[in-house]
Amino acid sequence: MASLDEGWADPARLYREGRKARLLLDAAREAAAEAVGCRTDELVFTSSGTRAVHTGIAGALAGRRRVGRHLIVSAVEHSSVLHSAESLVTEGGSVTEVPVDRTGAVRAEAYGEALRPDSALACLQSANHEVGTEQPVAEVAEVCRAAGVPLLVDAAQSLGWGRVEGAWSLLTASAHKWGGPAGVGLLAVRKGVRFAAQGPVDERESGRAAGFENIPAVVAAAASLRAVRTEAAEEAVRLRELTERIRVRVPQLVPDVDVVGDPVRRLPGIVTFSCLYVDGETLLHELDRAGFSVSSGSSCTSSTLTPSHVLKAMGVLSEGNVRVSLPWGAAEEDVERFLAVLPGAVAGVREKLGAPTPAPVTAIEEDSLVVDALGKRCPIPVIELAKVIGDVPVGGTVRVLSDDEAARLDIPAWCEMRGQEYVGEEEGPAYVIRRTS
Amino acid sequence: MASLDEGWADPARLYREGRKARLLLDAAREAAAEAVGCRTDELVFTSSGTRAVHTGIAGALAGRRRVGRHLIVSAVEHSSVLHSAESLVTEGGSVTEVPVDRTGAVRAEAYGEALRPDSALACLQSANHEVGTEQPVAEVAEVCRAAGVPLLVDAAQSLGWGRVEGAWSLLTASAHKWGGPAGVGLLAVRKGVRFAAQGPVDERESGRAAGFENIPAVVAAAASLRAVRTEAAEEAVRLRELTERIRVRVPQLVPDVDVVGDPVRRLPGIVTFSCLYVDGETLLHELDRAGFSVSSGSSCTSSTLTPSHVLKAMGVLSEGNVRVSLPWGAAEEDVERFLAVLPGAVAGVREKLGAPTPAPVTAIEEDSLVVDALGKRCPIPVIELAKVIGDVPVGGTVRVLSDDEAARLDIPAWCEMRGQEYVGEEEGPAYVIRRTS
Repeated sequence: MASLDEGWADPARLYREGRKARLLLDAAREAAAEAVGCRTDELVFTSSGTRAVHTGIAGALAGRRRVGRHLIVSAVEHSSVLHSAESLVTEGGSVTEVPVDRTGAVRAEAYGEALRPDSALACLQSANHEVGTEQPVAEVAEVCRAAGVPLLVDAAQSLGWGRVEGAWSLLTASAHKWGGPAGVGLLAVRKGVRFAAQGPVDERESGRAAGFENIPAVVAAAASLRAVRTEAAEEAVRLRELTERIRVRVPQLVPDVDVVGDPVRRLPGIVTFSCLYVDGETLLHELDRAGFSVSSGSSCTSSTLTPSHVLKAMGVLSEGNVRVSLPWGAAEEDVERFLAVLPGAVAGVREKLGAPTPAPVTAIEEDSLVVDALGKRCPIPVIELAKVIGDVPVGGTVRVLSDDEAARLDIPAWCEMRGQEYVGEEEGPAYVIRRTS
Repeated sequence: MASLDEGWADPARLYREGRKARLLLDAAREAAAEAVGCRTDELVFTSSGTRAVHTGIAGALAGRRRVGRHLIVSAVEHSSVLHSAESLVTEGGSVTEVPVDRTGAVRAEAYGEALRPDSALACLQSANHEVGTEQPVAEVAEVCRAAGVPLLVDAAQSLGWGRVEGAWSLLTASAHKWGGPAGVGLLAVRKGVRFAAQGPVDERESGRAAGFENIPAVVAAAASLRAVRTEAAEEAVRLRELTERIRVRVPQLVPDVDVVGDPVRRLPGIVTFSCLYVDGETLLHELDRAGFSVSSGSSCTSSTLTPSHVLKAMGVLSEGNVRVSLPWGAAEEDVERFLAVLPGAVAGVREKLGAPTPAPVTAIEEDSLVVDALGKRCPIPVIELAKVIGDVPVGGTVRVLSDDEAARLDIPAWCEMRGQEYVGEEEGPAYVIRRTS
């Protein structure tokens, strides 16, 4: 509020209000640099975390153009990183996506294997935005440093909790992720890292972020970062206990649930799980009606009809996906109420969709069945499969015809959860499952 | 304030807070589109006016890549437009700068002459940001339309006062220019205009402005635009009368002043003048001490050591340049106090610098004099010239040796103001002046 009154003027101007604005901007930069762990002249403010990522990647790639145009990213990066990678490919560069394990983590060795003589830059998030898994940033930074390749760390998810350790070269973050205002991102570029800002620039922010500075928001961003950091250690313990409660109790309370992400190396406030035989969007609306605002990386959400690339890369179930982000100060009683409401909400959605209830196998009629789920969307194909798997003998197969993109991910994931054998995909497309138990 | 509480969430999310944020964003877009005079699906919000210009120009150029890579701009555009033009040249395109007259206005015919078969885009500001001169946008738009070339109008200076008339194709603006918050720009692209957003994009703002939307600021921007428009007609008359007062009375109160910009076709709240024999930065500090925050396009300001490209293109005096921007609601008594303070402030600066006072010519000694002002900065070279011009007979010449970039502009401007003949520039560099009166 104070900086709306004091910081509205142009910091490039010489008059009183301009000088005041400049002082506020300088103080905010000092506070943010202290929080990041860099020099003030290494840090600029951008108009969003996405802009910081786009500018950081483009500038670092251009700075090492002579070395080559190869970029390394993990398969579970934020879309802003993946969009930058797509841009590079469009312009004739090449990209290696480092895979992740079922918890969503990369291995540092995999970055080592991806490095090439023409590698200009590597990117890795500090922690994943959908499942909360922390990445081995310091180890990957060491691998990159040894090869002389700069590493850009997207610290959007973790900067509120603490500095990113390790020998990173560039770092990006987003203020609204730590509870600050929208409209502010951070880009830190270590001294000595080759960097050539792309596109038109001006004299603002060391030529790395063009346009009139949004000083009121920048001041609020720096102040809120300092404020959350003061209580971060304590709040992290408290939220971690609450998310652990959800991690442990959801599978006890709701049948056929897959809690995803690393159980230990993870952000304090995020927990993600997927519910078999559930339409993510319907479940989300049920929970919304009960007063809970959760997100979904499921294919069954209206905004995007493809499943989350993160869940896909992890090879885990995407249907009925629910992401719970506990905000700073989230109350224990709200978590308890969520745990009380969730089982009924899931059961209600399953009942509407006619999901199978566990029942003893009655009669075995044929050793091969075809389920026609063409034109039906997630989670119907998996529900239809689950309904008939008991109708073939052990050793028999079910073919599910499905043109839903999510089936490609969720049918194998269902097989893994149920201990059935996923044989593979046939043209149609059809998915072949062998009953093994 | 309300939208900080209601509009913090991600409008792409399905839960309650996300839907609220989406409604606020949609309402803001409707209000802004109404003010611009376009369809809601033609308008996106960007993170600044500069970003709107960079995105608009890059997208329009890319959309017409097949036609060619020629861009037309006026010589007095905002730096964001000129930086985009520089970028194009770096990438192998070409740019024509349309000149302006001494009032700062372009002629529509000059745009017609600049058009080529490979012209992809033309840009013109609605009004100039330094001298307030309004441009003949509707006529230029007509010339461009006839040639099938889109016109981008940078309406940053005028959108608060009213819609931009004429058949423009793209339009940009900046909220803080109409008294809205920092961090919000507008980009309107008419249906049917070929446009290909450049660089990495995401699903936000029709793929034209990546990154989390700053909804609180967008809402404030739209609300403030609507608010200023309601009173624009009345306030324009009031401010125009006040700036007219400055235009008329400053030359009466202060000797050797050049009021610049079109006296009639101009913005209501901006008035700009240049004072001979004055160091712009020192004058600015004197006025600041008296409580007036003015800007300067003079070469004698610390932020940039080159004279304003606008004053340069107009061919008017740049030394001792002062730009007065009256904000919405500026009080008449403040204007009167400014007029009371200015003469003393200018006289004080001139005295410090040893500026010449008008005196009868006493003795004529030689018919050619050399003034060595090497190493001396604006306004000293002009002051030294003025001191000795009376020492040569009519018909005699003075050579001013000066390595100050501003001298190239200000010595000819001084000659014009004083009715002396500017002969030209010699190597040295030396500037030759013939006394004619």
